[in-house]
Amino acid sequence: MKLKVKDMDIATGGTLIAIINKKDAERLDLHHEDRIAVSYKNKKTTVVIDIGESKKAVIPGHIGLFEEVLSRLKVKNNNIVNIDFEDKPASIGYIRKKLDGIKLTKDEIEQIIRDLINNNLSAIETTYFISAVYTKGFDMEETTNLTKAMVEFGDKLNLDRKIVLDKHSSGGVPGNRTTMIIVPIIAAAGFAIPKTSSRAISSPSGTADTMEVLAPVSLPVHRMKEVVNKTNACIVWGGAMNLAAADDKMIKIRHPLSLDPRGMLLASIMAKKTAVNSTHVLIDLPIGKSTKFKSRGDAKRLGKDFKRLGKKLGMKVNVILTDGSQPIGNGIGPALEARDVLYVLTNDIKAPLDLKDKALMMAAKMLKMAGVFNAYDKAKEILESGKAYSKMKEIIKEQGGNPDVKPDDIEIGKYVHEFRSEKEGMIRSIDNKTIAKITRIAGAPTDKGAGVFLHKHAGEIVNVGDIILTIYSESPQKMKYAKRILKESDGVEIR
Amino acid sequence: MKLKVKDMDIATGGTLIAIINKKDAERLDLHHEDRIAVSYKNKKTTVVIDIGESKKAVIPGHIGLFEEVLSRLKVKNNNIVNIDFEDKPASIGYIRKKLDGIKLTKDEIEQIIRDLINNNLSAIETTYFISAVYTKGFDMEETTNLTKAMVEFGDKLNLDRKIVLDKHSSGGVPGNRTTMIIVPIIAAAGFAIPKTSSRAISSPSGTADTMEVLAPVSLPVHRMKEVVNKTNACIVWGGAMNLAAADDKMIKIRHPLSLDPRGMLLASIMAKKTAVNSTHVLIDLPIGKSTKFKSRGDAKRLGKDFKRLGKKLGMKVNVILTDGSQPIGNGIGPALEARDVLYVLTNDIKAPLDLKDKALMMAAKMLKMAGVFNAYDKAKEILESGKAYSKMKEIIKEQGGNPDVKPDDIEIGKYVHEFRSEKEGMIRSIDNKTIAKITRIAGAPTDKGAGVFLHKHAGEIVNVGDIILTIYSESPQKMKYAKRILKESDGVEIR
Repeated sequence: MKLKVKDMDIATGGTLIAIINKKDAERLDLHHEDRIAVSYKNKKTTVVIDIGESKKAVIPGHIGLFEEVLSRLKVKNNNIVNIDFEDKPASIGYIRKKLDGIKLTKDEIEQIIRDLINNNLSAIETTYFISAVYTKGFDMEETTNLTKAMVEFGDKLNLDRKIVLDKHSSGGVPGNRTTMIIVPIIAAAGFAIPKTSSRAISSPSGTADTMEVLAPVSLPVHRMKEVVNKTNACIVWGGAMNLAAADDKMIKIRHPLSLDPRGMLLASIMAKKTAVNSTHVLIDLPIGKSTKFKSRGDAKRLGKDFKRLGKKLGMKVNVILTDGSQPIGNGIGPALEARDVLYVLTNDIKAPLDLKDKALMMAAKMLKMAGVFNAYDKAKEILESGKAYSKMKEIIKEQGGNPDVKPDDIEIGKYVHEFRSEKEGMIRSIDNKTIAKITRIAGAPTDKGAGVFLHKHAGEIVNVGDIILTIYSESPQKMKYAKRILKESDGVEIR
Repeated sequence: MKLKVKDMDIATGGTLIAIINKKDAERLDLHHEDRIAVSYKNKKTTVVIDIGESKKAVIPGHIGLFEEVLSRLKVKNNNIVNIDFEDKPASIGYIRKKLDGIKLTKDEIEQIIRDLINNNLSAIETTYFISAVYTKGFDMEETTNLTKAMVEFGDKLNLDRKIVLDKHSSGGVPGNRTTMIIVPIIAAAGFAIPKTSSRAISSPSGTADTMEVLAPVSLPVHRMKEVVNKTNACIVWGGAMNLAAADDKMIKIRHPLSLDPRGMLLASIMAKKTAVNSTHVLIDLPIGKSTKFKSRGDAKRLGKDFKRLGKKLGMKVNVILTDGSQPIGNGIGPALEARDVLYVLTNDIKAPLDLKDKALMMAAKMLKMAGVFNAYDKAKEILESGKAYSKMKEIIKEQGGNPDVKPDDIEIGKYVHEFRSEKEGMIRSIDNKTIAKITRIAGAPTDKGAGVFLHKHAGEIVNVGDIILTIYSESPQKMKYAKRILKESDGVEIR
């Protein structure tokens, strides 16, 4: 069949879609999300059908194409393209199978991930996959296969080391930037730690966002490898590796219902560890009202799964449950967090002790996993002697940053709002989610200098007029909204 | 926040969507499918966020709006609109609850249907709802509440009759147009039967499409009521009643994976019966390779659920399992089927006996449910005496058609292709799906005259050169494709 191209003048950024009029759909026996092959001269591509009900979308005899399809076929408005029926991808059958509660094979899981990465699955189809894994679950074998599929269709580091250390925090705790202290300690101790970190998803700053204050983090795999070969370590954004493709697509679909299917969560994290050849991994699961774990029981169960999955992947995994009841460190937001990290590494008097203690404890556990004796003393010595700081400067330099930056040189947002206590009493709690929200609205993570500085923490006494926290922003408009969020919230409880 | 309108120049026809640039989304802490309120002067509406990754969609500082939103807010390209955060609809929480396997209350189900009808749920969110009902199931109470919610948010007939008869066939059998024979028999016997039928979904012609050959079927509720008050009956398209709104949206999302969650299937059918005040309903479940039921067991289980749901809704339901192994009647496609129906009603020698027998059997069962003695003889007498035909003429007239149309006056497609047997033997099977596909590709149901006429049925002997079937089409192009489908298929098995 022939149809005339209508240039929709938009890019969809995902699945390749074509819009046809309802009349043509009926005529051609095509339904919503059916596949057709669109060809023009010697080019051909498969697209998913979206049916326009009104003429305002696409008139009969026409086919609405988006940027990606137009450029792939090299067609323009009013060109005549040929269309042909195409079967749905095999994945659709496998997704349906999982919805029916039937275990998927290695090949089937691989095909789903392949189709997902190649944009062959629509949002609705991907939603069915998420639902299937959420409601019917993936057993350990399926989770292992999902992890391996994600690794297979992504980049790999191929590091030639016998021991590769790694860590992961399940998140939800603002300011939890232990990675940037642990990595230089481990590297200074002589072990490889090619760390990939995430950017902020729902948090105000991810480790990648904070590290970016000090050095570029969007390194391609070959550059990442160079940095690790020279310094034993790196702190880069995992998203720059192609690995995240399948994961990103799934996270986007999981968001509207905030679904965390166990198998996907495990696979998503462990695929990244596998891709960088990690042999020993420490998993930090913070427990608290605003984190992913309201109770130790939930965290323990997930911890066990991490260990089992690690075993299947040939990795040694240890799990720690930590206190996630309030933010860690004083600064929240990329620049403020980077400053805290440098205070700790330089043994500055302004260093937040909670951040230092947690990082030391974790670094020690990791060194112990790698066979180091007196690991805690060793980690402490490396940090307090300045060896960790020297290592961090090396890493910053190799990643392309300025190794000589001083914590107090880091620029913080110039619009400032001090929030003072209106009563006397003890701070009972500081809510992670509220602090995160204020920081984001103030501009983080895009505006590096935006954030919140906590002068007080839970358990401390405040008097009337004491500053509890300071909001920093780079824009008066954003500051206005951040202040509004602060005013409307009850994120700091004083009694 | 203020954003500048970009007119996307498309209508989406469903959920209200706005596209914003990734940078703005990050800045405003907005994620895919979050809600915002968009206001302009004194108008305001809630939209779902779609995030454009590239500038080709929408540049930062702009908001891409579709036809529905533009007209609702009365805004134009480059107008400045105000945007504000909105919470997700409460339904999202209920959908998540069902995904977690928790039973939904009456209020929760009502809210989901209300949001669905009001376009407050996105395709992804609706997909999660379908998945939840599919994987976790709806028990009889939930199914009853879903049915009632669908009735509540749709039109109702409010007929003042003590007994209202109705029927339903689960489909998958081309040519199964018993309704158009049963309805006039029942009505001539003095009972009310306000029949709403569907148009073709995946079949080549629905009863509504076939009836439309004889009379208009898109009657609003008040006209439908008039027709029933005058003639005891009607045969109209259910989709003209607003009832189908929620159902249509769900069917669209169910299509990509061809999911038929039990609770939705039951509710969808029984809501329509409730809306027209049916008291006695006969359900026909055809069993066969290409129907919804491969086995009697499956059909029996569903039949039981129909009866239980009927009881909850105060309706008497009987169920019959019938032979759905091959098409019924000779003609497939709107005009050809209408002709078959008139042949039966006028006791013409060309009447297909399988269609007549099935319709008589069903009409008798329905009359018996209503308390008629010797129901089969009664039904037969009504049909063969011509009383059913007179009643059909009344119905056609009241619906606005020409009551005097003769079967041989009905126009059939002028492009004709005869398919002859290349061998001698017995026809083992005629595949429903193949015949349906050929009929659709030939132009049905849009082209009323398109279709397939079966000269032979399963079990009949054919010789070399005998015509097995004839394809009719209104367009040479469509005939070409239909012939191709016939050639590529093995829909008629001769051995």
